[in-house]
Amino acid sequence: MPLLEHFDVVQWQSLPSPDAFCARHGSDVRVLITNGMAGVPSLCRDALANLALIACNGVGYDAIDLGWADARGIRVINTPDVLSADVADFAMALVLAVFRQVPAADRYVRENKWGRQGAFPLARRFWGSKVGIVGLGRIGHLIANRAAAFSTQIGYTGRRQQDGVAYSYFPTVLALAGWADVLIVTTPGGADTHHLVSRAELEALGPQGVLVNIARGSVVNQSALIDCLESGQLGAAALDVFEEEPHVPESIIHSASTILSPHIASATVQTRQAMAALVVDNILQHINGKCLISPVN
Amino acid sequence: MPLLEHFDVVQWQSLPSPDAFCARHGSDVRVLITNGMAGVPSLCRDALANLALIACNGVGYDAIDLGWADARGIRVINTPDVLSADVADFAMALVLAVFRQVPAADRYVRENKWGRQGAFPLARRFWGSKVGIVGLGRIGHLIANRAAAFSTQIGYTGRRQQDGVAYSYFPTVLALAGWADVLIVTTPGGADTHHLVSRAELEALGPQGVLVNIARGSVVNQSALIDCLESGQLGAAALDVFEEEPHVPESIIHSASTILSPHIASATVQTRQAMAALVVDNILQHINGKCLISPVN
Repeated sequence: MPLLEHFDVVQWQSLPSPDAFCARHGSDVRVLITNGMAGVPSLCRDALANLALIACNGVGYDAIDLGWADARGIRVINTPDVLSADVADFAMALVLAVFRQVPAADRYVRENKWGRQGAFPLARRFWGSKVGIVGLGRIGHLIANRAAAFSTQIGYTGRRQQDGVAYSYFPTVLALAGWADVLIVTTPGGADTHHLVSRAELEALGPQGVLVNIARGSVVNQSALIDCLESGQLGAAALDVFEEEPHVPESIIHSASTILSPHIASATVQTRQAMAALVVDNILQHINGKCLISPVN
Repeated sequence: MPLLEHFDVVQWQSLPSPDAFCARHGSDVRVLITNGMAGVPSLCRDALANLALIACNGVGYDAIDLGWADARGIRVINTPDVLSADVADFAMALVLAVFRQVPAADRYVRENKWGRQGAFPLARRFWGSKVGIVGLGRIGHLIANRAAAFSTQIGYTGRRQQDGVAYSYFPTVLALAGWADVLIVTTPGGADTHHLVSRAELEALGPQGVLVNIARGSVVNQSALIDCLESGQLGAAALDVFEEEPHVPESIIHSASTILSPHIASATVQTRQAMAALVVDNILQHINGKCLISPVN
């Protein structure tokens, strides 16, 4: 671990008493490494009096209070770009898995139903579909590139229409959901996008519609999603993220219309190494008084 | 069913005695609808004295003896093109599922392991991989188009290098397997491609290599595949086809390195309707003395 060459590294989870550590060593801590869900533990906010850098291992930093960090003069970095292509790959893996029923087909063969029950039910064609992207940022663009190779039509929504982008722009998520066969959520998390996809949007997506969420659980109203899946008002959902991870409601687990994964859109060996290297490089730049590579504030 | 408007239709599987039917009505049969695995049942070959057209519902016609059909003056049609994009979609669904472990991740969440056992093991990056395509026909080209959108390198092998194709050509499957991270088999079935991918090719693909077969089970030496998966000489396999369908060997079913599906690469509602329509249109052309739309011979 390259950090050990330069720093004393303390692992928060392995501390017998985080309180005692903060009381005794809090003012020695210069750098905190965290992620966008964990943020900065509230009990150490005041104790870390000399905290100068928060390094967020991931692109989303929704649990990090930027107002507080700014007020304290604390710099924040994240790890954008290095994970974007993996997340886009995984979004496409989920889209194809839900249209073509990959996990159910795998179970069908493993449970020896092919010989006994005959042909697997026909699935749904993906190519030629209308693909709606909620939030056309770095990851959204990479998803659009990939999806376009499947002869699809691409639409998107976001704060504004983007110059030089040929995909169809929709001013609201509701309008995009009404047009799309599959809606892929790729926005940041946080208060600005909380429940951006709620009951009205899911009903507009409709009984044949597919929701794919590789962003944050908070962006989708999970109880509305459960209702719409149970009533058949929404066709299917492929979910990598949930409102209270790692808790996944029983009704989502038992639904035949869901494909689920444990927040792994960027979870490849290569990308996690690249993210860790970017965290380390940012910290070394900071300590050496040089420019941060991927600053948030 | 449009055929019923024009013809007396007999369903082979529903006959109490195919023998008795052939003896009594065999010479009345003008058209036989079958698929590339079932072919023409041997017991009716001679009885169908006036058979004029074999309509193969599918692109592969490996079980249809073209020499015999030619000698008898029987025309054969199949259903190419209409299923190609679905098969390419499904190949990509399997590729992404195996690299990113979609079925295992889905099981992990459903079995409530996320909360109890923590993070799912890191998977393997797909983008940037070397993708080797065995048989760059219509389907192979559509797979290459799709895979290229994931920033991959594309290589292929086939009977000859194709003009105007920028992908890297390899003269043998063995050479392609030695270069590729993932080998996608898209050849026709039949004697010409029997066990084209065998032990040497699987070992060349190697302990990190991935085999994807959406062609025919006969193209891959299944017992060599089982050996290489068990010994770890091959990394993983995603298989839509098998040597003795619907039988799948227990060792393939119980392997943690396989993703399996019951021969569904073209099994979407839309494509099966298009295939059926093409079969009917060919039959109507034939009966009306017009040119066949998709002749094989």
